[in-house]
Amino acid sequence: MHAAQMLSTHPKAKGKQNDALIRCIESCYDCAQTCTACADACLGEDDVSHLVQCIRLCSDCANMCAAVGAMASRQTGDNMAVLAAAMEACAKACQACAKECTKHASHHAHCRICAEACTSCQKACEDARDALR
Amino acid sequence: MHAAQMLSTHPKAKGKQNDALIRCIESCYDCAQTCTACADACLGEDDVSHLVQCIRLCSDCANMCAAVGAMASRQTGDNMAVLAAAMEACAKACQACAKECTKHASHHAHCRICAEACTSCQKACEDARDALR
Amino acid sequence: MHAAQMLSTHPKAKGKQNDALIRCIESCYDCAQTCTACADACLGEDDVSHLVQCIRLCSDCANMCAAVGAMASRQTGDNMAVLAAAMEACAKACQACAKECTKHASHHAHCRICAEACTSCQKACEDARDALR
Amino acid sequence: MHAAQMLSTHPKAKGKQNDALIRCIESCYDCAQTCTACADACLGEDDVSHLVQCIRLCSDCANMCAAVGAMASRQTGDNMAVLAAAMEACAKACQACAKECTKHASHHAHCRICAEACTSCQKACEDARDALR
Repeated sequence: MHAAQMLSTHPKAKGKQNDALIRCIESCYDCAQTCTACADACLGEDDVSHLVQCIRLCSDCANMCAAVGAMASRQTGDNMAVLAAAMEACAKACQACAKECTKHASHHAHCRICAEACTSCQKACEDARDALR
Repeated sequence: MHAAQMLSTHPKAKGKQNDALIRCIESCYDCAQTCTACADACLGEDDVSHLVQCIRLCSDCANMCAAVGAMASRQTGDNMAVLAAAMEACAKACQACAKECTKHASHHAHCRICAEACTSCQKACEDARDALR
Repeated sequence: MHAAQMLSTHPKAKGKQNDALIRCIESCYDCAQTCTACADACLGEDDVSHLVQCIRLCSDCANMCAAVGAMASRQTGDNMAVLAAAMEACAKACQACAKECTKHASHHAHCRICAEACTSCQKACEDARDALR
Repeated sequence: MHAAQMLSTHPKAKGKQNDALIRCIESCYDCAQTCTACADACLGEDDVSHLVQCIRLCSDCANMCAAVGAMASRQTGDNMAVLAAAMEACAKACQACAKECTKHASHHAHCRICAEACTSCQKACEDARDALR
């Protein structure tokens, strides 16, 4: 991804290094993809009826991550309080999804990978929110 | 929109009327459209340099509303705590955008209309979050 | 929705009435919501294993409609050829989803409603694309 | 990103390697982020009035890439004709955005980087569409 390059060439951010923000942006886009793929992989399993809650949480998490990935990519103007609340909601979505995916991790490798991506994105969102202050 | 019909025919929601949720879903999709259009209309104004903060807040608000509109449309499984946090973040995004758009409302009718849509969506998100409990 | 009001107050569109475009924008946001809700309602049915293809097509249709709804909302600058191709792809997504949902319409009312929304959105996208020329 | 891992563990795709599809998925999420960041970076430039068309094309490209990135991530069920049309529309969005960003590449490094991401995503979408057949 080009998040670091885009941030370093941004007229309002140039010079400011913000590793926590870069990790948050990249993790959100990554997690949006992983959760979209995991919801679909769960839907393709023979035991789909046991994975209904997992599909729901993956779908919600994908929506939140896509929103926060875009919002965190913006540096022009100021929307800090809103971004902080969105990152917090996203961290919660990731945590809930990771918890559910972990239940299926031993049966379905895609759930194991998705749980890892969600846990990583949860931490990235929390760190980036703390770095906003 | 078909949100009320879709909710009343949903296997997990059938029979339960939830007017606050329906208003939240419809307001979020409406506000996502309105904010996308307002950001673009601001970009087309001669005084675009004075509308930079407005474009930023409209863009962020559109992202949050799109995410919450989709999440609130789901009834299968349970993700209440995450949905509540997302609705709260969305209400904040709407409030911030309404406040900024109101500053430009006397010059630009699209900002006046957008401020109204955002204020209405803020209330719908707050009411739906309260109704979750 | 506020699409008509936003278009009539847009600095680049003021005065030009474009009913086909307004219907396309509103239909896309409506259909994005309806398809998201139908995918989730199918997921909540006892016969979810028979609705897997329906969930896939609804999910894809929701993604295309959300993208085209946003793109069609923009009037500043010019991106006609891209918008036409996107509307055409969206019409195809709607047509495919309507066809699949129709198969389940007698068993599941949400599929009947979704098929209607998709067929309506397909026509709106085709009409708006024709009106671009 | 985890696209390759998610594809290799998907119940419907397991065993089939599809490098073109993986590149398309990853490029779409990358390009969605890059275009969102470039639209915002252009908005933050002193010469924003010269970058209006660039902001429009970046915004549209971000919407198309986000939609196709999600759609291409799905392997359950079949929606080939729709996906092909969406990839084609996305390639066009990337091409138009790359062409416009290139005009500003010598003044704004973010436009140069964005043009590269768009050109790369255009090719990835075209290759993935060809590989669908």
